[in-house]
Amino acid sequence: MSDGFFQPVSGMELPRFAGVPTFMRLPYVALDDARISDVDVGIIGVPWDSGTTNRPGPRHGPRQLRDASTMIRAQNGATGVRPFEAVNCADLGDVGPNPADIHDSMDRITAFYNKALDQGITPLTAGGDHLTSLPVLRSVARKGPVGMVHFDSHTDLFHSYFGGTMYTHGTPFRRAVEEGLLDPKRVVQIGIRGTAYDDEDIDFARAEGIRIIRIEEFFKRGIPDVMAEAREIVGTDETYVSYDIDFIDPTFAPGTGTPEVGGPNSFEALRVVRELEGLNIVGADMVEVSPPFDQAGGTAFLGVSVMFELLCVMASSAKT
Amino acid sequence: MSDGFFQPVSGMELPRFAGVPTFMRLPYVALDDARISDVDVGIIGVPWDSGTTNRPGPRHGPRQLRDASTMIRAQNGATGVRPFEAVNCADLGDVGPNPADIHDSMDRITAFYNKALDQGITPLTAGGDHLTSLPVLRSVARKGPVGMVHFDSHTDLFHSYFGGTMYTHGTPFRRAVEEGLLDPKRVVQIGIRGTAYDDEDIDFARAEGIRIIRIEEFFKRGIPDVMAEAREIVGTDETYVSYDIDFIDPTFAPGTGTPEVGGPNSFEALRVVRELEGLNIVGADMVEVSPPFDQAGGTAFLGVSVMFELLCVMASSAKT
Amino acid sequence: MSDGFFQPVSGMELPRFAGVPTFMRLPYVALDDARISDVDVGIIGVPWDSGTTNRPGPRHGPRQLRDASTMIRAQNGATGVRPFEAVNCADLGDVGPNPADIHDSMDRITAFYNKALDQGITPLTAGGDHLTSLPVLRSVARKGPVGMVHFDSHTDLFHSYFGGTMYTHGTPFRRAVEEGLLDPKRVVQIGIRGTAYDDEDIDFARAEGIRIIRIEEFFKRGIPDVMAEAREIVGTDETYVSYDIDFIDPTFAPGTGTPEVGGPNSFEALRVVRELEGLNIVGADMVEVSPPFDQAGGTAFLGVSVMFELLCVMASSAKT
Amino acid sequence: MSDGFFQPVSGMELPRFAGVPTFMRLPYVALDDARISDVDVGIIGVPWDSGTTNRPGPRHGPRQLRDASTMIRAQNGATGVRPFEAVNCADLGDVGPNPADIHDSMDRITAFYNKALDQGITPLTAGGDHLTSLPVLRSVARKGPVGMVHFDSHTDLFHSYFGGTMYTHGTPFRRAVEEGLLDPKRVVQIGIRGTAYDDEDIDFARAEGIRIIRIEEFFKRGIPDVMAEAREIVGTDETYVSYDIDFIDPTFAPGTGTPEVGGPNSFEALRVVRELEGLNIVGADMVEVSPPFDQAGGTAFLGVSVMFELLCVMASSAKT
Amino acid sequence: MSDGFFQPVSGMELPRFAGVPTFMRLPYVALDDARISDVDVGIIGVPWDSGTTNRPGPRHGPRQLRDASTMIRAQNGATGVRPFEAVNCADLGDVGPNPADIHDSMDRITAFYNKALDQGITPLTAGGDHLTSLPVLRSVARKGPVGMVHFDSHTDLFHSYFGGTMYTHGTPFRRAVEEGLLDPKRVVQIGIRGTAYDDEDIDFARAEGIRIIRIEEFFKRGIPDVMAEAREIVGTDETYVSYDIDFIDPTFAPGTGTPEVGGPNSFEALRVVRELEGLNIVGADMVEVSPPFDQAGGTAFLGVSVMFELLCVMASSAKT
Amino acid sequence: MSDGFFQPVSGMELPRFAGVPTFMRLPYVALDDARISDVDVGIIGVPWDSGTTNRPGPRHGPRQLRDASTMIRAQNGATGVRPFEAVNCADLGDVGPNPADIHDSMDRITAFYNKALDQGITPLTAGGDHLTSLPVLRSVARKGPVGMVHFDSHTDLFHSYFGGTMYTHGTPFRRAVEEGLLDPKRVVQIGIRGTAYDDEDIDFARAEGIRIIRIEEFFKRGIPDVMAEAREIVGTDETYVSYDIDFIDPTFAPGTGTPEVGGPNSFEALRVVRELEGLNIVGADMVEVSPPFDQAGGTAFLGVSVMFELLCVMASSAKT
Repeated sequence: MSDGFFQPVSGMELPRFAGVPTFMRLPYVALDDARISDVDVGIIGVPWDSGTTNRPGPRHGPRQLRDASTMIRAQNGATGVRPFEAVNCADLGDVGPNPADIHDSMDRITAFYNKALDQGITPLTAGGDHLTSLPVLRSVARKGPVGMVHFDSHTDLFHSYFGGTMYTHGTPFRRAVEEGLLDPKRVVQIGIRGTAYDDEDIDFARAEGIRIIRIEEFFKRGIPDVMAEAREIVGTDETYVSYDIDFIDPTFAPGTGTPEVGGPNSFEALRVVRELEGLNIVGADMVEVSPPFDQAGGTAFLGVSVMFELLCVMASSAKT
Repeated sequence: MSDGFFQPVSGMELPRFAGVPTFMRLPYVALDDARISDVDVGIIGVPWDSGTTNRPGPRHGPRQLRDASTMIRAQNGATGVRPFEAVNCADLGDVGPNPADIHDSMDRITAFYNKALDQGITPLTAGGDHLTSLPVLRSVARKGPVGMVHFDSHTDLFHSYFGGTMYTHGTPFRRAVEEGLLDPKRVVQIGIRGTAYDDEDIDFARAEGIRIIRIEEFFKRGIPDVMAEAREIVGTDETYVSYDIDFIDPTFAPGTGTPEVGGPNSFEALRVVRELEGLNIVGADMVEVSPPFDQAGGTAFLGVSVMFELLCVMASSAKT
Repeated sequence: MSDGFFQPVSGMELPRFAGVPTFMRLPYVALDDARISDVDVGIIGVPWDSGTTNRPGPRHGPRQLRDASTMIRAQNGATGVRPFEAVNCADLGDVGPNPADIHDSMDRITAFYNKALDQGITPLTAGGDHLTSLPVLRSVARKGPVGMVHFDSHTDLFHSYFGGTMYTHGTPFRRAVEEGLLDPKRVVQIGIRGTAYDDEDIDFARAEGIRIIRIEEFFKRGIPDVMAEAREIVGTDETYVSYDIDFIDPTFAPGTGTPEVGGPNSFEALRVVRELEGLNIVGADMVEVSPPFDQAGGTAFLGVSVMFELLCVMASSAKT
Repeated sequence: MSDGFFQPVSGMELPRFAGVPTFMRLPYVALDDARISDVDVGIIGVPWDSGTTNRPGPRHGPRQLRDASTMIRAQNGATGVRPFEAVNCADLGDVGPNPADIHDSMDRITAFYNKALDQGITPLTAGGDHLTSLPVLRSVARKGPVGMVHFDSHTDLFHSYFGGTMYTHGTPFRRAVEEGLLDPKRVVQIGIRGTAYDDEDIDFARAEGIRIIRIEEFFKRGIPDVMAEAREIVGTDETYVSYDIDFIDPTFAPGTGTPEVGGPNSFEALRVVRELEGLNIVGADMVEVSPPFDQAGGTAFLGVSVMFELLCVMASSAKT
Repeated sequence: MSDGFFQPVSGMELPRFAGVPTFMRLPYVALDDARISDVDVGIIGVPWDSGTTNRPGPRHGPRQLRDASTMIRAQNGATGVRPFEAVNCADLGDVGPNPADIHDSMDRITAFYNKALDQGITPLTAGGDHLTSLPVLRSVARKGPVGMVHFDSHTDLFHSYFGGTMYTHGTPFRRAVEEGLLDPKRVVQIGIRGTAYDDEDIDFARAEGIRIIRIEEFFKRGIPDVMAEAREIVGTDETYVSYDIDFIDPTFAPGTGTPEVGGPNSFEALRVVRELEGLNIVGADMVEVSPPFDQAGGTAFLGVSVMFELLCVMASSAKT
Repeated sequence: MSDGFFQPVSGMELPRFAGVPTFMRLPYVALDDARISDVDVGIIGVPWDSGTTNRPGPRHGPRQLRDASTMIRAQNGATGVRPFEAVNCADLGDVGPNPADIHDSMDRITAFYNKALDQGITPLTAGGDHLTSLPVLRSVARKGPVGMVHFDSHTDLFHSYFGGTMYTHGTPFRRAVEEGLLDPKRVVQIGIRGTAYDDEDIDFARAEGIRIIRIEEFFKRGIPDVMAEAREIVGTDETYVSYDIDFIDPTFAPGTGTPEVGGPNSFEALRVVRELEGLNIVGADMVEVSPPFDQAGGTAFLGVSVMFELLCVMASSAKT
């Protein structure tokens, strides 16, 4: 049972539009706060998009996600889970990136996560572009490679861009495999689609044993069947969940930099996460939410709705 | 057969963007107009949102719905119904609310509807927030409780907000049951979803006999099966239909104040109404359309498309 | 195998936001360019909307489609087709219309297409409102009537508007049948829906033998079944494909002038085109993309995604 | 003193967002209405933009101007004029144009105005693109040429476009001079600016005696001096006032199709009209308001604010 | 000299888009925080718009103002003032209103301010609609009537709306005078303009001795002259500053509910505040910022820029 | 007299919305094109924003500027200059940056400009964030330091950000002085305003002899007086003109990342450039136009209007 201190402010008490916005109206607990050691799941913002190769914007993601998250209430209507009662949740604030230096930023991110992990905190990240996952994995997988359930329209397994640039939002998982942070045989990528340059990423996946489930297969087999396979692939060992908002169809989530049409709708976007129940989740992220392309704010609201589902499966696994 | 006076202006004659916009380009017939007694179905605007607990805006709903409604033509393509030929329809104008006094506004609304009902008119309402349904029901159910088919993502069955405030858009049907306007055993709520504060509303529904069909059940069983049950619940007695635009997924209907992701698409939004064919409908409403959050106008257009479907089932039942 | 000159610029080399935007980053080859005779498929813009009866805007379509098309890569992820390697593709520029004279504009369009066809080029058109298809068909069908697969929410088979005006975006295919450009028995219209004035267009279709598949039937039977019938209707003779963006649900494609709610989603929008594989396609168009109503740009991106699918089936048929 | 029937609805009684929107909340009086002969100043919508050479949209102008006009109250704060008490004002509805036929539309417009003028009504027009002024002048100047004060960033004195097209929104006043509707020596054009094709229009103006006051001169001399000259030019004979919204800087009035930066601000936009006090105004128009490019609605609100100032000088002159 | 604890986070250290947004990146100090007694100037949000008679939205003002305020740096470039070094500033959070009960909300606001004033804090308010000023003045003027410099396009001196409703955003200063909170002879209202219902408010002002400087006089005399008179009117006694964002021209500040065209530009908007240097300011507010009508966010940024100028004159006076 | 090849396409021939958009509808002449040696003034896009410390977006600038530039006609209405007749102008395309590597990008830019300068071309740049000016100056000033007229709201003279990062859009001119590219005594910065971190940049300017004219001085003295001083400062030697769009008030130019309220309007924005007539201009740039924050496109249109004025003074000086 969670501590009363870690309960979100209710919209029945304080209207949702009032107050300084923290993630899901949770208390803000800085890394040097006395209460930090009591936190079980920490939501961390990474306002950073230096890995973007096309349309920037995810640096603004954490702030808008916090704003939209004030619409989230305490109980999962579909599953009945009350995550804030199950575990102690808090907003740990943002990692301060260096917008003009990619490597300095990655070092800052990994250092921040190491401090949180030292406190026994399981991190739920609000990115940031997808390169964010790399410095996070350098912390989460510091003791050895983890498995990954990866929702996305792209594999992000490319070798390099623009004549040799190796750190972009199209390369994080190639690097993570190379650095021994991911066990490729325990990685599944779901929702891949769109036009392609060539098969370079697919060939790498095949060679390493990464399982790719394209969107055509996803729709044909249906969510229960696909997700059963995904659970089997990652098994009961430590697993990271990476959720790129562009997994979802861009009509539902326009606020992102590299949209691909023909994706899942918002109901499916939530439902795939519920199927992660019971996994051994050591961290999760929601990345590529780009407010400048989300004029109506719907992407951020859908993004935090997915984050709440992620939190529910994280809390529920932490309970046992 | 309807009167020629009550035919909408055709877009083949006058372009859709021309003319003072009335609902569906019907004649405007004020309550004190000589032709009022000939009206069968009256479309009434209630530009009011004082019951809103989060993001206001539905006070602007009727005007934008009128504007978008000029896109509606005379015949239902799917069912072949031509409602304006079946019954005399008219735009009865707006109830003038008092934006700074909730109870004064509710009294004005009920009084307006009583006058319309005295003329034998069946009202189709363009709200307004969902509290609108309460003063409308005080008129429609003035002779006794009615049944209700309620499309929404929320139950609106809460007791009170903000330390005891009993009249908000989250409480109308709790009040309507308490006031004997609704027969709870003849009420079905369809599409409920999203995060929840707790189970207070669900417990009330269960205790009173209100049937709640959550969105997960809705998608699993499919529309024909769900709607057959809905028709059975309300039976052949007098039935009200309340349609909150947030029943529909917010990607399709972003212009609303309390969106919940993971809802029906626009085809499903129309189709559920067609399944009401044959019911004894004594009134219907479309509420929570909020233009300030509907930058592209799509919500209003979808809202009037649903209103046209409602009109078709109302007209078709009135014909018999 | 295509010529190296006709390869699009890769986003791995030049970022997608850089460079003068041509269709799919292909070379711009004017009709009087020396390389014109080497072009197999020519993408042509027709920035024209004088046939619009309600909300104008498609005159801005080609420019925004070019901009969005820089997101398209070289390979179809779903089918593996690489159209730019299969055939020589190029951007042939825009036909210059006369915004203030409908007939002068139609003559200019037909003349432009005749020149392209004289070079053996198969045209893929970026409209323009749907009246665009008429002057294009006057060129494509100059040797005799062709069949047509037509995706749309409207039949565009009306006789006239506003007291006798015979050339609007609601009449092109009535005129095309009358002028002997289309063989009505080889015409299938898919996705028809929305409110209707009356049955005038439906009656014409029935009398001429045009097959209409309404959206209700489309969803009930499913894409494979519907498209098999469509392929059978047009057979192996010369076939034109006309794709009105309002075939797609307006939530996915809001940037259009006469939206009808309740249509296919973006995945279905792409998939129907893939089912045209193997047809004898002599031309295709994407019409009614209206940037002023597409504030977030999603419609244009979806439009070019469909154009890429059209190009794939055109290239693939040209290969054999 | 005006008739009580012709008073606008007060926002103190009915909130501004309620009710079917007519111009300035005045009664709608059709040309065949019994009260038509009592109208002194009639506000007429002309939803038409077939003369547009670049970005269309003014066909949507009258509807949005009506909506925005509900913000207008009864008294001019700056001058104290109460126009609705001075003369009988009414909304006469819209002329129904033919979007696909320019000449048919012009004939319809002139016919509508002739009927209004036959009733002794002075027309205040809400356009429509600037070609609208031509058919209006054909009615207003049917007894002989009138003078004109013309606020605009363009002269609209061009001969033709696109190889000979003579009726566009860049040519109305060339035609009006040629047709003897305007006395060029009594015409003054104020605010001209922007890049130019050449000096064709300027040469025509000089040859005919039309006075052009460019924006540089306007700002240098100041409004009182410039407007004194304008009053002297038109004198005490019949004068038409044509106000193109693009006279105003596009930051203040973005909703227009051919903006030119570097124009007057909103205070100056109102003030120039006040300087028309005492002229013999036989008609006025506000044209080129284009809602698709006015996302925030500010252009329409500024447009109706100018229309109210025009109404005040018209009413004030009519009083005497 | 201020305490180091009360310094804002620098954008040179943490990028402006990072971190939980508080007003001007100041520390958040709740009323029950240990540091509260060290605060000199407290910025307080009042997310409330129940007094709005037309377009609601200011309830969302404080949150967007906080977001935009992260762009504010430490030093006033024009005057050299460094307010955060001069006095201890903090974000005191938001008053929690009751959106469905006006009087309950007003009581909550006054109670919150009384607690802050008990700590010796001078309040700078981020509203909220203009009715907000009334409950704030009930606290600020609890020991006796104060003077007021009031920037606005409306007098807000009306008696009542909608048949007797006395508490709206059009009535706060009528009530404040009646309740003895304002000394009318020490009140000056600057920028008044727009259409008017009648002269009721002006007559009240004249009878009470309130000085109204309309916009025409403001522009004619110039800022130094007008503001010298304003300073003379309020003198050296306790003075409140109320700044309605609609004082500024709506092109510069579109995000507000009752715009009036023809107002000051942004440079003038800032400069008038600098002229308050040396006054004895006991509180100030920035009200009527309405995010739903501020799509580009410019209004909020201008609003916080004005708030920073207010803070500078408050700090500078507090220093002496 | 210029070559006929280098004339822009007229909007009288081809409507402005038609055709592949190049800068001002000029021919596109790549660096390796045979005609490159005939170009006098080359417009070059630099789609790059890696130097941005807050809100990114200028990487999208060149494309939107090209689109908006199709509104530019051949003649300067205010000065009568016809630049395209005076000198041969062309669109040289975009420099391809590396979005993930600042130094690689700077090298690519300098290399591109060196090639253009080798052909005797004077470059007019469409950025890009303000760091763009540094690699451009490395080329333009390769033979020795140049003078600079710099329009901006910021000095961009800071030493470093985020703990030592020396290449951001806040540092280019500090670096340019250090690298000997600018002669600080021949540099004038006009329009500086907004809140400041401290006086570090001002102190540097004072020490080096750079003249800063703050916005308060600019408005007080007026444009003729200020610009006369600016001309005197740079004298008759080689001078670069750098124009940051945020020099202009953000209401007129919202599409930029670091806006400062209280700046010049659009008329003043153009007029300052006209006062550069007669200078010895060796290059000019328009930077910081950020389309994601320019929803209505007005910033881009104002940006190209300024670019046209720059081109006029460049052409006019080149003529002599």
